[in-house]
Order: sequence, then structure tokens, then C-alpha cells
Amino acid sequence: MSEYFLPIDASAAFDAAGATKRDLCRGEQLFVGLNCFEPGQSQRVHTHADADKFYVVVSGKARMVVGEETRVADAGTVVWAPASVPHGVAEALERTVMLVAIAPPPGSAR
Amino acid sequence: MSEYFLPIDASAAFDAAGATKRDLCRGEQLFVGLNCFEPGQSQRVHTHADADKFYVVVSGKARMVVGEETRVADAGTVVWAPASVPHGVAEALERTVMLVAIAPPPGSAR
Repeated sequence: MSEYFLPIDASAAFDAAGATKRDLCRGEQLFVGLNCFEPGQSQRVHTHADADKFYVVVSGKARMVVGEETRVADAGTVVWAPASVPHGVAEALERTVMLVAIAPPPGSAR
Repeated sequence: MSEYFLPIDASAAFDAAGATKRDLCRGEQLFVGLNCFEPGQSQRVHTHADADKFYVVVSGKARMVVGEETRVADAGTVVWAPASVPHGVAEALERTVMLVAIAPPPGSAR
């Protein structure tokens, strides 16, 4: 397994009990992970006061919320959630894999 | 055009003269853009001393370098280049679109 070359499919994991999170890579400045959803699963709307974040929909389709906007995002869509803008996943409409990146990383002291 | 929902395909652009760069979103902590390559095009190996970066190969295939590793990365691969680790694209083997994210953003004063 390479430290630097990471196939997304190999890290995707689903749970009928709820959306899952997986870590892909973590530096001092930037964290990258996966959020995986079965149809109907969600992620509550939340806000990172001091961190910029984005999702990339890798596969599937979900109704997502950022600020005042709600849209269905499918594969190949970047969903940008800058610091202090509320965001979340209202409902996955299919089995959905999202890459997510956030800076600074969760739990980092800055 | 949404401020938060950004289809990657709409921003991809190619140039026979060389690899292209496009901005997708920029916050105080995080920058997201695209690097697009025609077959045979490259990006020189370089290093960001204080910034973490990753690529996601969205479509196509390229021979990429990170640290001491050289691998062919295809769609669905995350290529992680943490601060101070040299990285680049030795050669695109097909027409290739890469999403790239870096924290802190280029040119930010920190």
C-alpha cells in the first residue's frame, strides 16, 4: 500500500446503521477523508467557524445544503463550504461516496 | 451559476501548448482548482515547503511522482503530497483532469 497513492474505492465503506467516515490522509494543514451514505442517509447541517471545507461527489447522488442553497449534487460535483457557512447532506438519493477535505484538520490546535 | 455547487466538467479546459490551471474555489485556509493535461503534457516536480496538497484524478491517467514513488494514477485515485514532499506529473498518458487542493492557498500570507 502506497503512502501517497490512495484508491478511493478501496477505502469506501457503508453501514446500514448510518453514514460512515473514513480517513484518507492528514497533514498539519489539511485533512482528506470519505463520507459514505446508503440511500436515505444524511449528515446534519453544521458549521466550521474557522475551517474551509469541500466535498467532491465521487459516485451516487445526494440532496445537499450549503448556506441558503439546496441542490442535488451528483458525481463530478464539487460542493464548497467555506468557513462559517452551514452545510450538510439532507438525503442521499443513491448509495453515495463523497471525498471531503478540510483545512485546518479537525482537532488541530490553531 | 451557484457559488457553492461547482460541476468539474464545466471548468475543465485544455491547451495544446501546455497543461492548464483553473481556479474552482478559494478560502482563507484552502484553495481548490483543476489541472488539465493533454496526452504527453507534464507538471515539473516541485515542493511546497509549508503547504499540504492533494490531487484527485477525475478522468484520464497520468504517471505521477511523489517523494521516491512513481506510479500511474487513474480516475478515482487520490495523490497525497504533504508539505515538503516533492511531487509532480511526469506525463499524462491520456487527456487527464485532476482536481487539486492546497492548504494554505498559494500566495496567502501566513
